[in-house]
Amino acid sequence: MNKKLKDVQNSIDDRGVEIQKVGVKNVEVPLTVQRKNSENQIVSAKAQLCVALPQKYKGTHMSRFIEILTEWEHKDLGIDIKGCLIDILNKLNAQKAEVKFNFKYFIKKTAPVSKKTSLMGYDCSFKGSYKINGNYKFVLGVKVPVTTLCPCSKEISDFGAHNQRATISVHVTYNENDMIWIEDLIEDIEKCGSCPVYPLLKRADEKYVTEKAYNNPKFVEDVLRDIVLILRKNKKITGFEAEIEAMESIHNHSAWAYQKEEL
Amino acid sequence: MNKKLKDVQNSIDDRGVEIQKVGVKNVEVPLTVQRKNSENQIVSAKAQLCVALPQKYKGTHMSRFIEILTEWEHKDLGIDIKGCLIDILNKLNAQKAEVKFNFKYFIKKTAPVSKKTSLMGYDCSFKGSYKINGNYKFVLGVKVPVTTLCPCSKEISDFGAHNQRATISVHVTYNENDMIWIEDLIEDIEKCGSCPVYPLLKRADEKYVTEKAYNNPKFVEDVLRDIVLILRKNKKITGFEAEIEAMESIHNHSAWAYQKEEL
Amino acid sequence: MNKKLKDVQNSIDDRGVEIQKVGVKNVEVPLTVQRKNSENQIVSAKAQLCVALPQKYKGTHMSRFIEILTEWEHKDLGIDIKGCLIDILNKLNAQKAEVKFNFKYFIKKTAPVSKKTSLMGYDCSFKGSYKINGNYKFVLGVKVPVTTLCPCSKEISDFGAHNQRATISVHVTYNENDMIWIEDLIEDIEKCGSCPVYPLLKRADEKYVTEKAYNNPKFVEDVLRDIVLILRKNKKITGFEAEIEAMESIHNHSAWAYQKEEL
Amino acid sequence: MNKKLKDVQNSIDDRGVEIQKVGVKNVEVPLTVQRKNSENQIVSAKAQLCVALPQKYKGTHMSRFIEILTEWEHKDLGIDIKGCLIDILNKLNAQKAEVKFNFKYFIKKTAPVSKKTSLMGYDCSFKGSYKINGNYKFVLGVKVPVTTLCPCSKEISDFGAHNQRATISVHVTYNENDMIWIEDLIEDIEKCGSCPVYPLLKRADEKYVTEKAYNNPKFVEDVLRDIVLILRKNKKITGFEAEIEAMESIHNHSAWAYQKEEL
Repeated sequence: MNKKLKDVQNSIDDRGVEIQKVGVKNVEVPLTVQRKNSENQIVSAKAQLCVALPQKYKGTHMSRFIEILTEWEHKDLGIDIKGCLIDILNKLNAQKAEVKFNFKYFIKKTAPVSKKTSLMGYDCSFKGSYKINGNYKFVLGVKVPVTTLCPCSKEISDFGAHNQRATISVHVTYNENDMIWIEDLIEDIEKCGSCPVYPLLKRADEKYVTEKAYNNPKFVEDVLRDIVLILRKNKKITGFEAEIEAMESIHNHSAWAYQKEEL
Repeated sequence: MNKKLKDVQNSIDDRGVEIQKVGVKNVEVPLTVQRKNSENQIVSAKAQLCVALPQKYKGTHMSRFIEILTEWEHKDLGIDIKGCLIDILNKLNAQKAEVKFNFKYFIKKTAPVSKKTSLMGYDCSFKGSYKINGNYKFVLGVKVPVTTLCPCSKEISDFGAHNQRATISVHVTYNENDMIWIEDLIEDIEKCGSCPVYPLLKRADEKYVTEKAYNNPKFVEDVLRDIVLILRKNKKITGFEAEIEAMESIHNHSAWAYQKEEL
Repeated sequence: MNKKLKDVQNSIDDRGVEIQKVGVKNVEVPLTVQRKNSENQIVSAKAQLCVALPQKYKGTHMSRFIEILTEWEHKDLGIDIKGCLIDILNKLNAQKAEVKFNFKYFIKKTAPVSKKTSLMGYDCSFKGSYKINGNYKFVLGVKVPVTTLCPCSKEISDFGAHNQRATISVHVTYNENDMIWIEDLIEDIEKCGSCPVYPLLKRADEKYVTEKAYNNPKFVEDVLRDIVLILRKNKKITGFEAEIEAMESIHNHSAWAYQKEEL
Repeated sequence: MNKKLKDVQNSIDDRGVEIQKVGVKNVEVPLTVQRKNSENQIVSAKAQLCVALPQKYKGTHMSRFIEILTEWEHKDLGIDIKGCLIDILNKLNAQKAEVKFNFKYFIKKTAPVSKKTSLMGYDCSFKGSYKINGNYKFVLGVKVPVTTLCPCSKEISDFGAHNQRATISVHVTYNENDMIWIEDLIEDIEKCGSCPVYPLLKRADEKYVTEKAYNNPKFVEDVLRDIVLILRKNKKITGFEAEIEAMESIHNHSAWAYQKEEL
């Protein structure tokens, strides 16, 4: 029996290959997320956790990742990503670790004219990595749907202009001592489209957003450039990736633009 | 200006076509779900709400669906589906309404030997429909991952047997005065595979589940038949749909079985 | 050895449950599809094949489905669905069989003003079922993207109107002796939106589609009603399911309408 | 009229932001792919094409990407990626361009004992980039499903061992004057699992693959290391990314490992 429960993972590997990342993926967990000016929000997340594995070990101990996630359900996982990473380094006896959480986060939106409120869900992500004796790195990701209205279509047409829903994806890195709220990042990005989108719009609001988008036509190039300028101006941000995909209403494909910068 | 805010949806349509279902889809909302023997769980849901539209009206009022969802965020949407349906009938002045919510629901699982606990997320759904002067109908849906181990592979091989993750999807209808807990339905279904799956398994647990599956080989046909027998025996259930898809470990396709019955 | 290769599937089952559908799912195969006024097109399909299983048999023979698909690669699978079903009934010794193929089908589109052509891919499906001594039933499915422009937004706004890409899904049943071309069904449905979509549009085309959609505003209710009227009028069609989902450009959710009729 | 058809994209932008990538995404096209030892295969692809946009221009000309794809349908797009990139640079007057095609590619597989053949579809990708006066870079991507059988589960259990389908994703870069066949890359990678998967397996084959996997247990770490060693040994390969995700049959999540190397 004792023989049976041998720790195979701990046996020696002689292939001489250090593995950069090994761990678990698509683990579903509840996650506590800190809200701006409000109490915490519990969200459903998909988690990915990994470590680097030195060449001498045959395998990592996958169940320990789940044990750590389970312990953190009673703590504030999502608020203390670094604490979770330190736990991983300790319990898996590793030198480098990385975690990533993707989740839907709800924010109250106020309609522009009727002032009616409703909740809107945004796809967000937290990614953290940590090396022993090295630096902690954190990346915040948000996906923000907006309306884009085509400047060319408006210019060349006698009336109307094609417009569509577009999704802006932004990932930003910032220093450990700084804090960027999901709410603030989304608000900044949302301004870069032709108009924000809302779950609840009454007729007076619908008139407002229709006319606002028509008065504010933007190519994906325009949206991307405005995002780049806003992110460059934010002193906390040390690097970013930004992407916009517009699900063109006159085509069955998307217009798309992308930028990555270290600041 | 008044002319501008005309209620176009309310104008007369003369095509003579009554629409069976019209409404909103892929609306993201937080949902309160009643737990067995515990406090409520707040989940992230995708909602679909619709009504039947008489032939004389040009359109329905889509924003009212979102208003109703917003009001119900402060009430117990997910617990009182019927109350939500009655609100829809009233506010949209409709004769028939239907709502559907898909969400991830977390349940604590206990590993079979180590007794370590962890949370596992299950895809669940609530579907309700209601007609004026007619019946309320409710359908509970759950997706349950299990292990299946192939009886043929075991029988013909000198050692080992191929096994894989399979997903069992069950939708059950039951009367308004009855109650079926998500937890109970999942527990019943989970027994029908070769072995349940768990997020957290230590070595002694892994030995247990490996041997249990090997001792309990099942084709998708076997799993489906056992589910059918269990659902038929449940006096509360008045109809069901059951499906199992096994992501075969020796192929790149799935084995699959399906049954629908009125009881 | 002989014992080892026992036919486990063929053994007796005493649970008394006849299985309605059992087979394989998500099998990838090349499929030959007949084009209108042109040579055949080879497409990539996802196949689902199943049979009904009498209560006395423990299991079906899954590998035979793949053998049949393999044989049909050299014949005209996709053109002779009934022939494939008859093969299944024979080789699996079954009373009922059903097959389903989902595939991307390319059609040449001509831009409205520049007359430039380009290929557009449509998601299509073939579904056939057959019973010994019973009827053969065939269902053709197509998904057609179109532009929809909101009548309410146009009416209440001083300029512009929100519009978006919408997907119309239609499944039609027709008699064995009739023939409905994918090309014809798509053309009929495409007319029901505010404007068709195209892969390739030059500036003169973009002006045309922008103004056409603005002159032809339609709610999802309008699109659905026009589709219902067109399908009812087609003498070959004996039943249909129709659905439209508009990815609203002012919201992060969809407007949606659905109809099912036996004619 | 002339005023109407103004080239808005060509107007001057004064924000001073050069855009790294702008173009079209999710364009569906037929693609010609060169087979090893056989005639070409026409596949359905999703295309992404983009250019870098100098800071002075407001926008790129999206319709030209579609024109280029349309012209290349009559040529051997998929075989001459570099030719397509040169066309993009010329027609969009750009300095840098990138294209990416994702497609399903069918390869004949022979069952290990019965020698029966069947076609299996693999997700593949071509990515090419080109700079004026710079280098052409090409990346070939393949996804290869295999069986993995857990060494720990085998060691600690009295009988059986959990196994599952795992997907290996590999992207390799190689020099312009070299050629790596999709068929060869897949064959090399497939050997790194516990056993390959096949669409068609008769009983003698099923016995063979069951026993082969049991005799060849591998963690995701083992599979990744064997892939790394094979790719490092291939003199043509100048860099790679490799990833394996095993859809654990005893969990509802995946085990996962990743490596990226410049050689």
